[in-house]
Amino acid sequence: MISTMTTRFTADTEFLGALFDELFPIGRSISGPGLRKTLGIFARYMPLEIERLESGQQVFDWVLPPEWTLRGATLRGPGGDTIADAARSSLEVVNYSEGVDRKLNLAELLPHLHSIPRLPDAIPYVTSYYKRSWGFCLPDRVLETLPKGEYHAHIDADLEPGGLEFGHCVIDGESGAEILLSSYVCHPSLANNELSGPLVLLGLFDRIRRWPRRRFSYRFLLNPETIGSLCFLDRYGDHLRQTLEAGLVLTCLGGPVPHLSYKLSRRGTSLLDRVILQTPRERVALRSFDPRSGSDERQFCSPGFNLPVGQIARTVYGEYDGYHNSLDDKAFMGIKPLVASIDEIERLLLQVEIAGTFRNLSPFGEPQLGRRDLYPNTNSDKTRNHSADSVLDSRVFLGRVLMILNYGDGEHDMLDIARRCECSLDDLREVIERLEALGLLVHDHGRARTP
Amino acid sequence: MISTMTTRFTADTEFLGALFDELFPIGRSISGPGLRKTLGIFARYMPLEIERLESGQQVFDWVLPPEWTLRGATLRGPGGDTIADAARSSLEVVNYSEGVDRKLNLAELLPHLHSIPRLPDAIPYVTSYYKRSWGFCLPDRVLETLPKGEYHAHIDADLEPGGLEFGHCVIDGESGAEILLSSYVCHPSLANNELSGPLVLLGLFDRIRRWPRRRFSYRFLLNPETIGSLCFLDRYGDHLRQTLEAGLVLTCLGGPVPHLSYKLSRRGTSLLDRVILQTPRERVALRSFDPRSGSDERQFCSPGFNLPVGQIARTVYGEYDGYHNSLDDKAFMGIKPLVASIDEIERLLLQVEIAGTFRNLSPFGEPQLGRRDLYPNTNSDKTRNHSADSVLDSRVFLGRVLMILNYGDGEHDMLDIARRCECSLDDLREVIERLEALGLLVHDHGRARTP
Amino acid sequence: MISTMTTRFTADTEFLGALFDELFPIGRSISGPGLRKTLGIFARYMPLEIERLESGQQVFDWVLPPEWTLRGATLRGPGGDTIADAARSSLEVVNYSEGVDRKLNLAELLPHLHSIPRLPDAIPYVTSYYKRSWGFCLPDRVLETLPKGEYHAHIDADLEPGGLEFGHCVIDGESGAEILLSSYVCHPSLANNELSGPLVLLGLFDRIRRWPRRRFSYRFLLNPETIGSLCFLDRYGDHLRQTLEAGLVLTCLGGPVPHLSYKLSRRGTSLLDRVILQTPRERVALRSFDPRSGSDERQFCSPGFNLPVGQIARTVYGEYDGYHNSLDDKAFMGIKPLVASIDEIERLLLQVEIAGTFRNLSPFGEPQLGRRDLYPNTNSDKTRNHSADSVLDSRVFLGRVLMILNYGDGEHDMLDIARRCECSLDDLREVIERLEALGLLVHDHGRARTP
Repeated sequence: MISTMTTRFTADTEFLGALFDELFPIGRSISGPGLRKTLGIFARYMPLEIERLESGQQVFDWVLPPEWTLRGATLRGPGGDTIADAARSSLEVVNYSEGVDRKLNLAELLPHLHSIPRLPDAIPYVTSYYKRSWGFCLPDRVLETLPKGEYHAHIDADLEPGGLEFGHCVIDGESGAEILLSSYVCHPSLANNELSGPLVLLGLFDRIRRWPRRRFSYRFLLNPETIGSLCFLDRYGDHLRQTLEAGLVLTCLGGPVPHLSYKLSRRGTSLLDRVILQTPRERVALRSFDPRSGSDERQFCSPGFNLPVGQIARTVYGEYDGYHNSLDDKAFMGIKPLVASIDEIERLLLQVEIAGTFRNLSPFGEPQLGRRDLYPNTNSDKTRNHSADSVLDSRVFLGRVLMILNYGDGEHDMLDIARRCECSLDDLREVIERLEALGLLVHDHGRARTP
Repeated sequence: MISTMTTRFTADTEFLGALFDELFPIGRSISGPGLRKTLGIFARYMPLEIERLESGQQVFDWVLPPEWTLRGATLRGPGGDTIADAARSSLEVVNYSEGVDRKLNLAELLPHLHSIPRLPDAIPYVTSYYKRSWGFCLPDRVLETLPKGEYHAHIDADLEPGGLEFGHCVIDGESGAEILLSSYVCHPSLANNELSGPLVLLGLFDRIRRWPRRRFSYRFLLNPETIGSLCFLDRYGDHLRQTLEAGLVLTCLGGPVPHLSYKLSRRGTSLLDRVILQTPRERVALRSFDPRSGSDERQFCSPGFNLPVGQIARTVYGEYDGYHNSLDDKAFMGIKPLVASIDEIERLLLQVEIAGTFRNLSPFGEPQLGRRDLYPNTNSDKTRNHSADSVLDSRVFLGRVLMILNYGDGEHDMLDIARRCECSLDDLREVIERLEALGLLVHDHGRARTP
Repeated sequence: MISTMTTRFTADTEFLGALFDELFPIGRSISGPGLRKTLGIFARYMPLEIERLESGQQVFDWVLPPEWTLRGATLRGPGGDTIADAARSSLEVVNYSEGVDRKLNLAELLPHLHSIPRLPDAIPYVTSYYKRSWGFCLPDRVLETLPKGEYHAHIDADLEPGGLEFGHCVIDGESGAEILLSSYVCHPSLANNELSGPLVLLGLFDRIRRWPRRRFSYRFLLNPETIGSLCFLDRYGDHLRQTLEAGLVLTCLGGPVPHLSYKLSRRGTSLLDRVILQTPRERVALRSFDPRSGSDERQFCSPGFNLPVGQIARTVYGEYDGYHNSLDDKAFMGIKPLVASIDEIERLLLQVEIAGTFRNLSPFGEPQLGRRDLYPNTNSDKTRNHSADSVLDSRVFLGRVLMILNYGDGEHDMLDIARRCECSLDDLREVIERLEALGLLVHDHGRARTP
């Protein structure tokens, strides 16, 4: 059941735009107050259960880092002018910098400065989670003109024992078989990568809870990237192995690209993989699974789990100038592309609902369709009282009934049956629902996986 | 053992033509005296065991209908003239009509009349097994000119509790693994569809009993279509699941088409499927399995059974004008095409006999072929005493011996071995039989399936 | 452990040439003093264990023949001139001839003479192991001009109970999973077929014992062809079924052909099959498995064993004039081609060492690469301090690390991973060894097969 304690909302452009503006300035990281504040804002709208693991805890091959608290970070020049200030943008300090309050000359300072020569106006996004370090990020145009003299680097930050959080919730469906929708909330002031994913996730939560029925249960997860999904897997990996039919990491879902782009799961055979494989490429471009780049699907698809989790994007990381720098802002991302992403992913999930295998509950011979008004009781399709069209229509419908019953054996999925019928998956929806209502057909959604 | 109580016969054109003439006029249906009489005629020649199920009995999803007894059916016009009369042709009354004796005007009558506007001279074949109804069938040319006035519809028929029969028999072979040959005997006065199937079935019975050996057992089944095969499956479905290597529904085996046409079983991998897949398409055309049309293979191939049963035809139902109407007569069907069908199907079955997997009984290393006169004892193929041809012949023979022994592992069938030898299946027959006689090879015909 | 009792050697052209000269004249057969002497010569350099089976013993379908001892064989003409003399060449007497001392005229003699009309100067190689017989082999040019008169055939030979030997040894590796290298030592004075195989086998023994590590154990086998490998299988067949990863029968590895030629194992999926399938065809030509011709792989690949054993050659049997006759001499074979064969097969075996499946020992999520210096600790690949090249190099290395860890699941072999990385197998060697050293990866060499 979905808690009614959350605020009512509709995920339209107005709502998403305002929520973006509230979230963007927060200085997020993989732990600390910015992460907690961000999860708290989403928890207003979704009944997120927030879970916490402690610094120093072992999670698979990893040890959770200390929690990072940043109170301020400034770099002042020889003339006292502000070179970098985390209060202007959370990008201007290296994420997970240790505290420092030190005067130093330009040569000493330079190893602590980061810029992008190729993009002289952009401030890069730099992190150092697992090695103690500090630094500032600034436009290369500024860095190039820094004068000699004494600089004052002041980062008011702690790296102390604390914790790390993730939040998740489930909308129950007719079976315990799950679809996972996941995104990450550790990036500071970056828009497409990554506030688009969490906002689209919230939009899909809004849509799916309104569906009249759900054959699957839907789990929504927000975590810090990599380490957060490892923490989630530490607690829920076994559960997912039992119940997960398909999963989707949401990332980079805004920006100018006109179509979605899907990265197949490592297995390449999840329900969603199969739905998208038969979707026209101009609607959803396809990327192979590749462990060398990407987001949390790398953890979900590690060989010890090998979960059926793909990743969906629009303007893909690494393929635009603003990737991991200050050019990735609201103007670049846009709010309308997020709504388009919500629409298109919802449509794919509605297909996932009927794409799987079903079972004919009367599999020994054909069921007697006549007494269920699915078959002409008088075997004469050439009587004068039928128009050619209606005969054709009823024959096509009957043909689909016979195909679904014959191949409804738990081995042929509806995508396969649609191909055999030379029709689309959506063309079968009405027939499927009629047969379900007659008690002749039942969805096979991971029955073996449901406890 | 085949009973010797049956009449001796040879299934030649004369025999089949005379038998056709006896069978054609009988008013057959899925139950009743016409069906019983027809089974009785076949039982003269084959040791058919006739089995009966009772009206009202549940068979899978179906309830057996009452038995239909038709004593006469006439429709007379305003002037007393005969419009339809079941005594002229059993097609002129709707099959399974309830009894009626009623005077009615043309407007009241018309919903009970069936014709084919596209074929104005043909009388259609109409049935209404599972919904109480009555009617007459007549040429559209007649129907179009019926005058107004009072008509007298008289159908002297009962729908009363009774039974439903099918008949079957087995010619035993070396193993209990079975080949099923099936056809249906419920159609009234129609020739190609369906007296051709039962007559070809009888012809194949005649041929197969004459074979010097049979590696498989052959079961012959005649039943009313659909409901009769469901009754058979109700009693023998489990047996077939244990023993059936391949099955064939025989239908529409006469008519003008010069070659056979095979509809693959749902599995597509039965021995017969595999034999026919490698047969030239000009000898046997191929149709995919499709549950939307066809005959009893739809029941055998329902997902609960999924038996390896295909269907073979010549002039396929639905592809000729006379399908399900009075144009389907002896002249259209012909008797010679039936004999050609018997010849060609027998040839396919003879291939099925050797197409499967065999096992090398001396599989550890090559057997010592020299002491069995399968290998030259002096390793010198270039002596002056051999002509090149005989060396080549003996080498080809030896090569086939080595191929069959090496791939005779129960996993590679003889079709595969023939492809590897670049020869035909028939080219291997002599080698197979030599190795069987030497005790080096044994047919693998469903050993695991034989009790 | 390799015994140190053997003579030190380096398998260079000088060593191999001298050893060839010692071996060539010996009158070898499938049993007897020639076979024993030959095995003794190889045992100087390899710690061969010589095993013996007795005449008359049943080995699978075979009975071991009596041992053949030849002391001399001469055929003298009417004028006392020497027509054939086994002291000139061991080919001049039919191998396994029974003893004879008889005077006979030309007509009586002719059935005992063998020549090759197509090659009038060549002496053929003829055997009659399993049927008592005797004969001489001579050039057709000589045979054609034999005058009438009385001939004296004298073969001083015994066929008495004795034994039959093979020899084998193992170089241990990190696992008990084995690679088998086998050749045969029953041919008398023939060079390419067959002294090349045993000499190349000895060369590979020399190379492999020098490797710094071996993931597999390597077994070296020398036996009389066919019957000897059956004897070996009789004793070690079960062991090979448990431990064999790949095997290679060495034959015809000299001669003029510039590249190797590999005959796939019957399975076609051994580690060596897979390595060679992705090797350029100009380096190693490919032959399908075929039981109709070849050497001991026919026994190893008989269906009862179906071991993963292929066969490698250079100038293939049956494809050159000198096959099985006196034209197959040292000049035709050459010594340099043997060294080239050793080099090339060693290279293939070095690939086999890393071509198989490995297992990521930290498969739940990605391991934390940063603390193992495999991942940049500061996430900023655009700092001014790196050249583009070094960034690229480290990224390629890191990408290979991630690919190997993700697909290191025991199901994807390194050949597959190399294809996914678009690099060669050798390109992965450094990455594999780094990950092994870090304890993140372990070779999967038949762990299930190792006791």
